[in-house]
Amino acid sequence: MAGEGEFDFIARRLAPLTRGQPGAYGLKDDGAILVPSPGQAFAVTSDTLVEGVHFPVDEDPFKVAWKALAANVSDLVAMGAEPKSYLLNVVWPRSGPEARMDGFVDGLAKAQDAFGLTLAGGDTTSADGPWTISMTAMGEVPRGRTPRRGGARADDILVVTNQIGDAWLGLELRLGAVSIDDEDARAHFDAAFSLPFPPVALCAAINDCAHAAIDVSDGLLADLGHILSASGLRASVDLQDVPVSNFAKAWLAAQPDEAAARLLLATGGDDYEVIAAIPEDAIGRFEQRCEEAGQRVTRIGVLEAGEGLQVTFGESPVETDALGFTHF
Amino acid sequence: MAGEGEFDFIARRLAPLTRGQPGAYGLKDDGAILVPSPGQAFAVTSDTLVEGVHFPVDEDPFKVAWKALAANVSDLVAMGAEPKSYLLNVVWPRSGPEARMDGFVDGLAKAQDAFGLTLAGGDTTSADGPWTISMTAMGEVPRGRTPRRGGARADDILVVTNQIGDAWLGLELRLGAVSIDDEDARAHFDAAFSLPFPPVALCAAINDCAHAAIDVSDGLLADLGHILSASGLRASVDLQDVPVSNFAKAWLAAQPDEAAARLLLATGGDDYEVIAAIPEDAIGRFEQRCEEAGQRVTRIGVLEAGEGLQVTFGESPVETDALGFTHF
Repeated sequence: MAGEGEFDFIARRLAPLTRGQPGAYGLKDDGAILVPSPGQAFAVTSDTLVEGVHFPVDEDPFKVAWKALAANVSDLVAMGAEPKSYLLNVVWPRSGPEARMDGFVDGLAKAQDAFGLTLAGGDTTSADGPWTISMTAMGEVPRGRTPRRGGARADDILVVTNQIGDAWLGLELRLGAVSIDDEDARAHFDAAFSLPFPPVALCAAINDCAHAAIDVSDGLLADLGHILSASGLRASVDLQDVPVSNFAKAWLAAQPDEAAARLLLATGGDDYEVIAAIPEDAIGRFEQRCEEAGQRVTRIGVLEAGEGLQVTFGESPVETDALGFTHF
Repeated sequence: MAGEGEFDFIARRLAPLTRGQPGAYGLKDDGAILVPSPGQAFAVTSDTLVEGVHFPVDEDPFKVAWKALAANVSDLVAMGAEPKSYLLNVVWPRSGPEARMDGFVDGLAKAQDAFGLTLAGGDTTSADGPWTISMTAMGEVPRGRTPRRGGARADDILVVTNQIGDAWLGLELRLGAVSIDDEDARAHFDAAFSLPFPPVALCAAINDCAHAAIDVSDGLLADLGHILSASGLRASVDLQDVPVSNFAKAWLAAQPDEAAARLLLATGGDDYEVIAAIPEDAIGRFEQRCEEAGQRVTRIGVLEAGEGLQVTFGESPVETDALGFTHF
């Protein structure tokens, strides 16, 4: 790394992000020592983000850091695991990493504080290539209580947290593919895309109540499809039931074909919300806990014996093949 | 990824590497669930390797996989932690990853079986850039028993496992910087460089006996320096005491300046052996356990109050500055 060396970057900028967690040893040792709390297991997940592939070239490094951590935390939330620690592996491009370091480390600091985890280790290097960030995040979940993709049962109620589609609108705005006059709406959609906030407040409710859960990264319908195929069940979703923000409602009102527009929101992805399958006897408790946590939750269907996902707009079936949307 | 998709690569090639470990869920879920055995903590370490930086362009992908896993396992061994699980994050170059996949997965399979750990998760993507591999490895160590860089005490005996310098000779051979006629010696040095085997059989002995330990990746003297500076101690090492292989002895015999040649072996790095500081009352037990495990162990010095590392060749002091070798 030109200028500031790897050692300095770790000691001066990254070590404070351990927040004194004893097992991280101030990033001075060969690794970290981590022990789950009594009765808890570690949920472990890992993601790699490459500049120009997973985020735009010259993206604000604060947002890169935030979104990288959010993507990992989102997986933990879907496993019902409270975020605790993460490891960070960065490959800096050889030309001028310094300009990005301040924003990147600031983004890490703000995101880890928002999501409740601390840095425990990792590796830093530089190469002639794109900026590449791998993160491994660890959370705690009571042993034997992790909801799984394949854990859903017939008659479970399908719910989704908060709202869907804002991140897709944020991406389309950046790409210039949609245009929106309302400045507040543009700012809202851009924040949904670049500074997503997974519902970390719901980890305990999810591991307490959900049979199955998955985070929405590929798109609501695609990720719901993963639950259906893993659980061997079918569902029908009315696009009118998919929760959207008031800003998205205003955009929908201006679209010539509401069904097609809602389908775009439901397939856009990058929402980092959670789809969960909740048994009937726990749905009241789950909704209560969401309300207490200040998180919106919406019922979007009921799981049934069979296979496949039927999508409707009111009474009308919606053809999903036309979007190149893979069947399950 | 051209041709074979990410999904197929994970399902067909990587999933078998979980060896049925239940918490890995066949790599089908958002993450893994890992629980240390009763009384154990997790040691967690992570490394990133980039083609053209950490391994040669067009290196045999079997060796890339082996060495990546060995580098992580080596950190665990130095923490006295039995290797258990690893996560793998790969960025494939967009052009032609297929040719490398068979060898890479075969290398992972052989290395994980040799070192005793299984795949638990990760992420796979492709980009226009160098082949990049991040690994995060987890091992188990009895709680509160991890030797640390800074844990050494005065009068502890410094030991190093097996032999030092063969990997450096393997690298120099590849670079054409040394020439050796003996074919067996060339094969031995190349294997030491490209297929290192950290002393995993010594994890329990290390956490039972060592006050401090570090793996030899930067070079014996540099890594010993890390123990000295972290522990606030000094040591004197006679290069004649540094254990070398019989092949390296033959090479040394042909060098005009044995002191200079031994210094190269002791600063070359990539050995993936362990330096440990063992208290006097445990040294007999440690040596006994090394013998039982079929691992050579050599005393190379005694820790003393003070600071800095003195290097000698017999009675003569050896100047280490000339090599650009940083003082501690």
